[in-house]
Amino acid sequence: MAAPRPPTESCDVELRVRYAEVDAMGYLHHARYAVYFEIGRTELLRANGLRYRDLEAMQLFYVVVKFAARFRAPARYDDELRLRTRTLRLTPVRVDHAYELFRDQQLLTEGESTLALVDASGQPTRLPDPLFERLSGESSR
Amino acid sequence: MAAPRPPTESCDVELRVRYAEVDAMGYLHHARYAVYFEIGRTELLRANGLRYRDLEAMQLFYVVVKFAARFRAPARYDDELRLRTRTLRLTPVRVDHAYELFRDQQLLTEGESTLALVDASGQPTRLPDPLFERLSGESSR
Amino acid sequence: MAAPRPPTESCDVELRVRYAEVDAMGYLHHARYAVYFEIGRTELLRANGLRYRDLEAMQLFYVVVKFAARFRAPARYDDELRLRTRTLRLTPVRVDHAYELFRDQQLLTEGESTLALVDASGQPTRLPDPLFERLSGESSR
Amino acid sequence: MAAPRPPTESCDVELRVRYAEVDAMGYLHHARYAVYFEIGRTELLRANGLRYRDLEAMQLFYVVVKFAARFRAPARYDDELRLRTRTLRLTPVRVDHAYELFRDQQLLTEGESTLALVDASGQPTRLPDPLFERLSGESSR
Repeated sequence: MAAPRPPTESCDVELRVRYAEVDAMGYLHHARYAVYFEIGRTELLRANGLRYRDLEAMQLFYVVVKFAARFRAPARYDDELRLRTRTLRLTPVRVDHAYELFRDQQLLTEGESTLALVDASGQPTRLPDPLFERLSGESSR
Repeated sequence: MAAPRPPTESCDVELRVRYAEVDAMGYLHHARYAVYFEIGRTELLRANGLRYRDLEAMQLFYVVVKFAARFRAPARYDDELRLRTRTLRLTPVRVDHAYELFRDQQLLTEGESTLALVDASGQPTRLPDPLFERLSGESSR
Repeated sequence: MAAPRPPTESCDVELRVRYAEVDAMGYLHHARYAVYFEIGRTELLRANGLRYRDLEAMQLFYVVVKFAARFRAPARYDDELRLRTRTLRLTPVRVDHAYELFRDQQLLTEGESTLALVDASGQPTRLPDPLFERLSGESSR
Repeated sequence: MAAPRPPTESCDVELRVRYAEVDAMGYLHHARYAVYFEIGRTELLRANGLRYRDLEAMQLFYVVVKFAARFRAPARYDDELRLRTRTLRLTPVRVDHAYELFRDQQLLTEGESTLALVDASGQPTRLPDPLFERLSGESSR
């Protein structure tokens, strides 16, 4: 039997800082980075042929259980940024991601998150085998 | 010479989750917690007789350099929450805070942040002595 | 038969402008006013003994179909504002509200909205008679 | 003397609805449309060779004085939308825009706004002649 296709474990997204996202200093407000990182996760999933909206339609929801970020230099209004999102570790019940946000070659921000999979009632659940295999490149058995 | 008045090192704020702050699951979106924690810092400063808007008028700006949160249980729309903000460590150039968010007696979320003081051009700067003394309860000499 | 108790048709809410809500000018960003007005509606409903979360639990959802605002003077970070929300017109299928936002005695912003009642599938629906009567002070027959 | 080049009076922007922008119904929250429309204005300006960040660097700020929107059908998480922004009327002191937001060929939302030009102290001011001419295609005399 054929081994599953290796998953895409990293993807880059271009983002332009919106006026509504900066603060009185003209800096991207620190709460918005979590919104950007979420976009990175969505696009990484899409690069693997899955849409988060389809997971939700299957009553599978990823909730953030841990989040950390280190802000090295500010992003400003209208800046064009590049967000790199990587999967650090994937199990059927959780996933860890790392994030790096760049302006040109300068690393502005680093982040990490842990997400847990829950069902519509908020109870922990597992990724169905075919989805786990597609995302991990491993058999789930 | 009289010792400075001991500073207020912890304060509680009541917050009600807004409709615009929840996500498609009906949970408070994880990016909003950073907004709540910022309110906690503002009110802790106010409890010490200072307003962040006055710091900014003095060209003193606190920027977030590190942020972490652990989400134990979701908050939902219209929930009444209590946020406890504590100063963990204060120096003339930075401050560390800890946050605990409760619904009734249940701890929903814990967070920590480190802020650095910068001037209007974004360069590191120091709290003037009288402000440092008021906030730390220590002489800055 | 007793006439229904006259409904509360206006309520005032105190709001303090959050740091995360202002823009690079230090002004409350114009998109945030819609968030404030929504809080006003929620509290006006609560003043009538209803919680919007309970309507949603009954599969009744108010969606905004029309919104307008006129901005007379800016609100700034940390300003304490007073929002007055009034019901202009209520039918079993829609409701019109008016909003006035003040800092002290100064009127900063005026707004109006129309909301339509829909069910979980987004189809127009009607307020059940007892709710309509409580909110309108009129019999629905 | 050569007539000024006719300005670009309309531009289209593609936007994908972010998870952090939808509400508990899974609909794009009505307050976010103002954020989208602002992006439309920024890109229309850019299509005319100007960046809003450069206006701000010249101490020229556009503030929203009037805003209206009509919501015909909801946008949902992950939807790909097309926003058309048009200049309705431009004078040296104000500008009126119209907005139409589409999913495929379906018109979801219409909006209008009026912006006034102010200086750093919030006082009304005028677009410098060369900028007015570039944006209006007319001589300002």
